[in-house]
Amino acid sequence: MYSPKVERLLINYKTLEEFKKFKEYGLQELSMLEDLQANIIENDSDSPFYGIYLGDKLVARMSLYRVDKKFDKYFAPPQDYLELWKLEVLPGFQSKGYGTTLVEYAKSFNLPIKTNPRVKSADFWSKMGFAPVTYDMKRDLGENPLVWYPPGVSERP
Amino acid sequence: MYSPKVERLLINYKTLEEFKKFKEYGLQELSMLEDLQANIIENDSDSPFYGIYLGDKLVARMSLYRVDKKFDKYFAPPQDYLELWKLEVLPGFQSKGYGTTLVEYAKSFNLPIKTNPRVKSADFWSKMGFAPVTYDMKRDLGENPLVWYPPGVSERP
Repeated sequence: MYSPKVERLLINYKTLEEFKKFKEYGLQELSMLEDLQANIIENDSDSPFYGIYLGDKLVARMSLYRVDKKFDKYFAPPQDYLELWKLEVLPGFQSKGYGTTLVEYAKSFNLPIKTNPRVKSADFWSKMGFAPVTYDMKRDLGENPLVWYPPGVSERP
Repeated sequence: MYSPKVERLLINYKTLEEFKKFKEYGLQELSMLEDLQANIIENDSDSPFYGIYLGDKLVARMSLYRVDKKFDKYFAPPQDYLELWKLEVLPGFQSKGYGTTLVEYAKSFNLPIKTNPRVKSADFWSKMGFAPVTYDMKRDLGENPLVWYPPGVSERP
């Protein structure tokens, strides 16, 4: 079975130009653009972005960041976990499994994952094994956190 | 000049039914519904929700929560601030100043305000005096924080 390849994205002008096609282009991308312009970064391979190319066209992306266990407010026992955001597949390339491939890639690190999906995508996340946390206003404020637990990990009581 | 009245919302079944008309209905509302059903709360007046009624119809709402200064990562000097989320005006009632009225109400507490707007609403927030922070991935992850500073407050360096 064909399985699309997930690549860690190099942050350069070409990548940032591709990012403009994604809806969730925001402060993070603008900040990376400034860093490029100021020659602070160039072809940064330590970026949080992963993506899938078809030819030389970026058609799907996500951001992944490893949060240190000392900031963990979600899992028991407290541990390093991955925050996943900006999972997005370009229109015209959706429903082909690219989103699934990216999330499976995130799971392959075998760390708990937390995400705060921006769109009505509950079915997708449920199929991927993600579950809502028990809402805690002090912690969650305007978020709707969904989490994935690897074996041996559970929700913070 | 007519100025719509901002009310702190009582959390009861009627309010939660009105909330269903808003796009950003999520885990927070579901959790309040469970608390009502379990008789944990009833007509909770200590809710984070504020809104504007036309007759008995809720047409605009927002959530406001006072974050303790020990969790402040945005302002100098560190201090209590308000997190604002779920600012939303129902379709058909937009562009009449209800959003502005709610944000002005939030400002009247004279605390710094932080929000992470979900939609492309940069012009509105700019008109309200909100500015983007300097993006910091460790802190901001997938957020695009906008802040409002009362006199004497500035961005955390």
